[in-house]
Amino acid sequence: MNRMIEPDLSAPVDGRQSQRALEIQRGTARLLRRHGFVSLPEMTLKSGRRADLFAINDKGEIWIVEIKSSIADFRADNKWPDYWDYCDRLFFATNQETPADIFPQDAGLIIADAHGAEILRDVEAQKLAAARRKAVTLRFAQLAAARLHAIHDPGIPTHIEPNKI
Amino acid sequence: MNRMIEPDLSAPVDGRQSQRALEIQRGTARLLRRHGFVSLPEMTLKSGRRADLFAINDKGEIWIVEIKSSIADFRADNKWPDYWDYCDRLFFATNQETPADIFPQDAGLIIADAHGAEILRDVEAQKLAAARRKAVTLRFAQLAAARLHAIHDPGIPTHIEPNKI
Repeated sequence: MNRMIEPDLSAPVDGRQSQRALEIQRGTARLLRRHGFVSLPEMTLKSGRRADLFAINDKGEIWIVEIKSSIADFRADNKWPDYWDYCDRLFFATNQETPADIFPQDAGLIIADAHGAEILRDVEAQKLAAARRKAVTLRFAQLAAARLHAIHDPGIPTHIEPNKI
Repeated sequence: MNRMIEPDLSAPVDGRQSQRALEIQRGTARLLRRHGFVSLPEMTLKSGRRADLFAINDKGEIWIVEIKSSIADFRADNKWPDYWDYCDRLFFATNQETPADIFPQDAGLIIADAHGAEILRDVEAQKLAAARRKAVTLRFAQLAAARLHAIHDPGIPTHIEPNKI
């Protein structure tokens, strides 16, 4: 991975995201696109948790990718199985510096750098309930369009109430 | 309307859009937001036609706004009723320089400038079929996120196949 490159990365960047996490995010979003999934970073769910990458394809299938840029980053999160309530497939994405064997088998695993990624281990789909799929798709639609609107017309809020899903 | 202001307007700009149309687009997108609708400009539909503003609220209701920046612009379009196949409410949006009485009663009417807009005449909703609503919501989600992704990671395509809806 070329540390000289500072990728211009998607969406709200705050103190919770390290540079390494942002590199993984960019590479993973490219991978998702190759698989037909358009992704949105940092989507807050009804549970109050934020999905690092929330991705949807043209069949309406939903993948969530949780980015863990170090062993400590993964170990600080013991509620990750909750994301299964919002997706058909759940993946972790990490970098080559983080040992793959710390990640549990009941989520997929993606290895990424700033330029791309690959799926090291897939995971069996757990089909989302129709009402939940509908609600999160609608929220994704509104959030993506609101962020885009705010880029083109500064002053427009990007906040969309998450409490309906 | 202050002609000195050159608004930085949303999404793909091509030769088909005049400056006046872009001003109407910006003001109308702000109006839609106040009504709880997040909008996306230039969304191509299954019919091959592009909706000038395709908007969705948190109940999944869909409005389409067709921008007509002059009498000639309106008269050049005799297929506008087709948009009713893709929305719950259809509006025209124009500026104060265009006579309001040229616009038909079977669509709503919005008067806009670059800074804002108002609904001059509402229109009764025609409820969209569930399958169509689902398909266009999904397409909106993908298109908005793809445009956002391309802004943050140049080289990513914004094109999303429209042929499923």
